[in-house]
Amino acid sequence: MSRDFLLSNVRPNGGPSTMVLVKDGRFAPVDAAPNINSLDVVDGGNALMLPGLVEAHTHLDKTLYGMGWYRNEVGPRLIDKIDNERAMKKELGIDPARQSARQAVLSVGHGTTHIRSHVDVDTDIGLAGIEGVMATREKYRDIVDIEIVAFPQSGVLVRPGTVELMEEALRMGAEVVGGLDPSGIDRDPKGHLDIVFGLAERFARPIDIHLHEAGELGAFALELTVERTKALGMQGKVTLSHAFCLGMQDHLAVGALIDGLREAGIHIMTTGPSSRPAPPVKRLLEAGVVVCSGNDGIRDTWGPYGNGDMLERATFVGQRNNFRRDDELQLALDVCTHGGASVMALQDYGLKPGCSADFVLVDAETVAEAVAAHPPRKLVVKKGRVTARDGRALVAMP
Amino acid sequence: MSRDFLLSNVRPNGGPSTMVLVKDGRFAPVDAAPNINSLDVVDGGNALMLPGLVEAHTHLDKTLYGMGWYRNEVGPRLIDKIDNERAMKKELGIDPARQSARQAVLSVGHGTTHIRSHVDVDTDIGLAGIEGVMATREKYRDIVDIEIVAFPQSGVLVRPGTVELMEEALRMGAEVVGGLDPSGIDRDPKGHLDIVFGLAERFARPIDIHLHEAGELGAFALELTVERTKALGMQGKVTLSHAFCLGMQDHLAVGALIDGLREAGIHIMTTGPSSRPAPPVKRLLEAGVVVCSGNDGIRDTWGPYGNGDMLERATFVGQRNNFRRDDELQLALDVCTHGGASVMALQDYGLKPGCSADFVLVDAETVAEAVAAHPPRKLVVKKGRVTARDGRALVAMP
Ligand SMILES: [Zn+2]
Ligand SMILES: [Zn+2]
Repeated sequence: MSRDFLLSNVRPNGGPSTMVLVKDGRFAPVDAAPNINSLDVVDGGNALMLPGLVEAHTHLDKTLYGMGWYRNEVGPRLIDKIDNERAMKKELGIDPARQSARQAVLSVGHGTTHIRSHVDVDTDIGLAGIEGVMATREKYRDIVDIEIVAFPQSGVLVRPGTVELMEEALRMGAEVVGGLDPSGIDRDPKGHLDIVFGLAERFARPIDIHLHEAGELGAFALELTVERTKALGMQGKVTLSHAFCLGMQDHLAVGALIDGLREAGIHIMTTGPSSRPAPPVKRLLEAGVVVCSGNDGIRDTWGPYGNGDMLERATFVGQRNNFRRDDELQLALDVCTHGGASVMALQDYGLKPGCSADFVLVDAETVAEAVAAHPPRKLVVKKGRVTARDGRALVAMP
Repeated sequence: MSRDFLLSNVRPNGGPSTMVLVKDGRFAPVDAAPNINSLDVVDGGNALMLPGLVEAHTHLDKTLYGMGWYRNEVGPRLIDKIDNERAMKKELGIDPARQSARQAVLSVGHGTTHIRSHVDVDTDIGLAGIEGVMATREKYRDIVDIEIVAFPQSGVLVRPGTVELMEEALRMGAEVVGGLDPSGIDRDPKGHLDIVFGLAERFARPIDIHLHEAGELGAFALELTVERTKALGMQGKVTLSHAFCLGMQDHLAVGALIDGLREAGIHIMTTGPSSRPAPPVKRLLEAGVVVCSGNDGIRDTWGPYGNGDMLERATFVGQRNNFRRDDELQLALDVCTHGGASVMALQDYGLKPGCSADFVLVDAETVAEAVAAHPPRKLVVKKGRVTARDGRALVAMP
């Protein structure tokens, strides 16, 4: 397929069947074609057309995908999983470059066009994860955009030397400052957040913090994050991932937290986790908070699940939030497309003329059906080029 | 494939590669083959071999599968969904025979060999649902076993005439007496359970009650069920489906309920629901309670989700219960196989010699991988005959 083409007989966002012009890798008004009869025409087969899926939270550096089955016998505590993972990285030889490439290619097959990946930075692995994912980002730059969060998975204050590694990661090319459970791991919420926001301020970068802390402990960390975001004028640049505390039963307390998020322009990432309290997606959206989603870890030492499919993730978000109506399933899709695009501040995202021609064709009657059934993607296009057909990327799996 | 054959190079339950003899539709010791060299040999390709999957809770009569997308704009209350469904049955022309056949064939494609289906009995539809599913049961008897629960979806006491219809359904061939939210719908827990247990006693049938009632209200209904089960000596013959009350936060209160279940030999069915409190599967199993699972409604007026795949359901049960270890994923599979077989009191279920040759081959290294990834079933065999390949039933979709 050439870079310029007409895509006929597709239904953007479930609307009526129409024709779409792709020109220089971007969508263009059909009447902008200089010589419409000379263009290649691709028959969309009346498929549903969706914008490229946005994986706004994953861990490309440490999937075990393609490495043979990892028998999980890990203990129940968070620290068991963190310690086991550091050990396994050596024992199993988890190569961040190879593994991130595998997951990136898998995701492209499912229609993902943009990925935000947290990448471990710690005093054991150093910057090898960052280097590996950067190599994958460069190698696959034509089929998927990857944004890197420098992620202190093993803590910052408890592992001296980590701040310096974070700084180096940001200099090397990681775009986002990561953080993790300010109380749970570093045992010092003020100290942890001071470091994270300090790095963000010095490097002028956005922030994305893993906040697993539930209930009142997580609510406290959320409040501290709101205060710092406002004080530093970082509205729109901070994301809290998971934020299980927003799944608290106390409706009024959650309302107060949501007010804080809206005022501070803080975004929420939820996987729609079935075994944990979860942020109420519809309530957040109605309050004006941006919500995105991600698959989190895919088949790693933490857990066996996941396949990189963000349309299946939309199903999970819908199920977790008891979305049944068609208008609710649309919200689940929005979270996995435009929500992620907002969080990653993508400038040319969407199906409108001028946007990058990043899209997915699905055999489904409506958006709701696409979300509920997540059938294999018929066609995936990135910057006007076909990258996947029938659920598989065109490039070979590394 | 003939009825007698050797299946070579398969790994039953993830054990070492071996050879399996199928004789007269049953498993037999390999040395029982009279003339082993004359038998057909089917190469299992080193696949994982699992027993047939057991769908222990669904609603064959009212799926909309294959009918075009149903735009769900239903209100939020339980009664909205029940009333809407009765209206839609007429408006959409949901034919119980055709629709149950479609879902049964879909399920066979995913490796299900046994189904317990609740089938609506009410004063609007009468016994048309029962007749339709009975027709499907007869038509597809060689590829799937179907057990029918006469299910008073719209209530019993609140709809005079329903008891008589239930009696007629049981005479016609429904095997199990159904019930529904004794307080929530009939507004009379004692009265509702007296009727359900009364029917069970008179017809000498097992019971399966939909108990959505959560918290203390559901706990009360559970206690009433325990009392009646013991008083009538019905241990092992009663199932509570959903039992969200077992997902209460109060650990001690749940423990008391579980003690009651064990003493009364009451089984629990859980879908692993991500948006509701859910029974703690591992705790129940450790206490000796039989747990089974099902997909519940597939793409119906209640909700848009579902595809009839019980191996994917095992994934959901695993995710909902935060199962990560391999030994935990085995539990999720057990629930979707042997657990359902126990609840349905199947006499010849399993992979042992003498059992009906009902099995599934999956490309997976381990049971845990099969549960976590639920790849398409390579081969499905029922009573020694191939019924599906590569995720699709051999019979045409009606
Ligand atoms: Zn994460
Ligand atoms: Zn049901």
